[in-house]
Amino acid sequence: MDTKKLVVGIDIGGTNTKFGMVDRIGNIYVEENISTPFYSDFDDYINALKDVITKLESNVADAEIIGIGIGAPNGNHNNGTIALAANLPWKGILPIVAKLQKFFPNTCVILDNDANAAAIGEMIYGGAAKMRDFLFVTLGTGVGSGFVANGEMIYGYDGLAGELGHVIVEKNGRQCGCGRYGCLETYTSAVGIKRTVSELLAKSNEDSIFRHKSLDEFEAKNIAEAAQNGDKIAIEAFQITGEILGLALANAVAITVPEAIFLFGGLAKAGSLIFDPTIASFEKNILKVWKNKIKILPSELQNKDVSILGSASLAWNYINKGAL
Amino acid sequence: MDTKKLVVGIDIGGTNTKFGMVDRIGNIYVEENISTPFYSDFDDYINALKDVITKLESNVADAEIIGIGIGAPNGNHNNGTIALAANLPWKGILPIVAKLQKFFPNTCVILDNDANAAAIGEMIYGGAAKMRDFLFVTLGTGVGSGFVANGEMIYGYDGLAGELGHVIVEKNGRQCGCGRYGCLETYTSAVGIKRTVSELLAKSNEDSIFRHKSLDEFEAKNIAEAAQNGDKIAIEAFQITGEILGLALANAVAITVPEAIFLFGGLAKAGSLIFDPTIASFEKNILKVWKNKIKILPSELQNKDVSILGSASLAWNYINKGAL
Repeated sequence: MDTKKLVVGIDIGGTNTKFGMVDRIGNIYVEENISTPFYSDFDDYINALKDVITKLESNVADAEIIGIGIGAPNGNHNNGTIALAANLPWKGILPIVAKLQKFFPNTCVILDNDANAAAIGEMIYGGAAKMRDFLFVTLGTGVGSGFVANGEMIYGYDGLAGELGHVIVEKNGRQCGCGRYGCLETYTSAVGIKRTVSELLAKSNEDSIFRHKSLDEFEAKNIAEAAQNGDKIAIEAFQITGEILGLALANAVAITVPEAIFLFGGLAKAGSLIFDPTIASFEKNILKVWKNKIKILPSELQNKDVSILGSASLAWNYINKGAL
Repeated sequence: MDTKKLVVGIDIGGTNTKFGMVDRIGNIYVEENISTPFYSDFDDYINALKDVITKLESNVADAEIIGIGIGAPNGNHNNGTIALAANLPWKGILPIVAKLQKFFPNTCVILDNDANAAAIGEMIYGGAAKMRDFLFVTLGTGVGSGFVANGEMIYGYDGLAGELGHVIVEKNGRQCGCGRYGCLETYTSAVGIKRTVSELLAKSNEDSIFRHKSLDEFEAKNIAEAAQNGDKIAIEAFQITGEILGLALANAVAITVPEAIFLFGGLAKAGSLIFDPTIASFEKNILKVWKNKIKILPSELQNKDVSILGSASLAWNYINKGAL
């Protein structure tokens, strides 16, 4: 009998590190979880990764691990390191690929950041399967993105490209965590839409359930629920968010001209509440030559285990290109 | 004796079509010019191209033409056609590559638009020679651009990518020829800076030589001369132009992270008048991780025959990749 060729997808988060063995078409065989902060020493953590990978392989009959994909905050594909990730317990520049490669010398080990891993997941397992040019945008706590052009992720000369969330969309706009003002993610993230609700409560006399709650008490999904229940402040907040996002996407399209744009993450789950105003603003602001030609779609990974699939896809993408 | 391997660079303009035979390192052997509008029939024009190419080859001893590169307004690299070019005498979609290829079946024929051809010229013959990620921006009558990522031009799914000039930088801003408002090229082109002079004349009481001239009477280079002579309106116009350009470049960098940005064209010839405020605004507006890391440089093709070299570089780039 042939061996099953699988890759291990590893998603490194501040709380948990998740593992899954995944085949070429996205079936997840076995999964595992370990605590990330339990390992205060980075070499101990690497040893734990090695032990889990080895255990996973022995748990699937006739399995052969032919690749390891790692998604991590600040993971740098170009040099295989994680640099200065605020939510991880280890400081400095962490050469995770080189260290793990020592234990698995004959297996490709590919690192990337979370947003790029999700984008490549969309290409390997989702709606971008046959596309060579697309844009993947995560609308979560922040705004992340991955730009694929000519079938390749745009990494930039330092591996850090694709920061659509930090395009400045409003001069002297909202203060951003990055130290500047007016970045896209201060408007179109889960946090950004809450700030928009605050702004609307100040501007308008309209009643809203959010007049009776502090910012800490509600989340982006509550704004979506309120909008569905007719809360005018909530509806307006989605409208404004979509207008800003649509213009930013139209501007990004002028540079890379993707075949489609995939939206992912908490805000994207609001469905037509966010897609309708985003598409309207996108079509209004785009150059005539691209009007009604570029699709804005929900990610097909939205309801799947994107952290495992995205990480695994990094290795499959490498293997599929025949680079192995 | 070995044959000299050369390519023909053809630059198609509204007035002239220029030809040059160019070697791998950018020496131009023979040049030729024909009138573009003289050929009202497109097939007659193709025959003229064929005749000139054949004549050029016979004019250089032991020369062998191994490629033909064509730079043309609206030239589409992906499908080899020129579509709806306002300044050319032929209407519709012109399959120039297919038609010329019939006469030279064993030679690569590569088409691109002017800005992309100049960008690839910078990569083959200029300052981007060893770069895999860079941005090339032409500040001429309009603003054109070519983005190179992973060593490849970003063409987008339809071949029309790289329209930095049509990124909207000012909501409800200046009217653009594209039918929209606030595009970068309404501010940072040769025409854009004239509009800025007009705006400043309206806003300020400062004296200026431009109070005594109509817009038709002066060009961007006159604004540069005036600024060098201390005209405060002219100096302020460059300052504003640089501020807007620097922010637009910082935003583009967040997407592609080039190693360097090359500025080309009339406005770029103004030297520190345009580079100083552009670099200051760029560094002020860029994410911290890229501060003082990305060079903004004058194109090294600025004082060379960019139309011939850019067109020729299209063929050399293809040949160098071993695609032939």
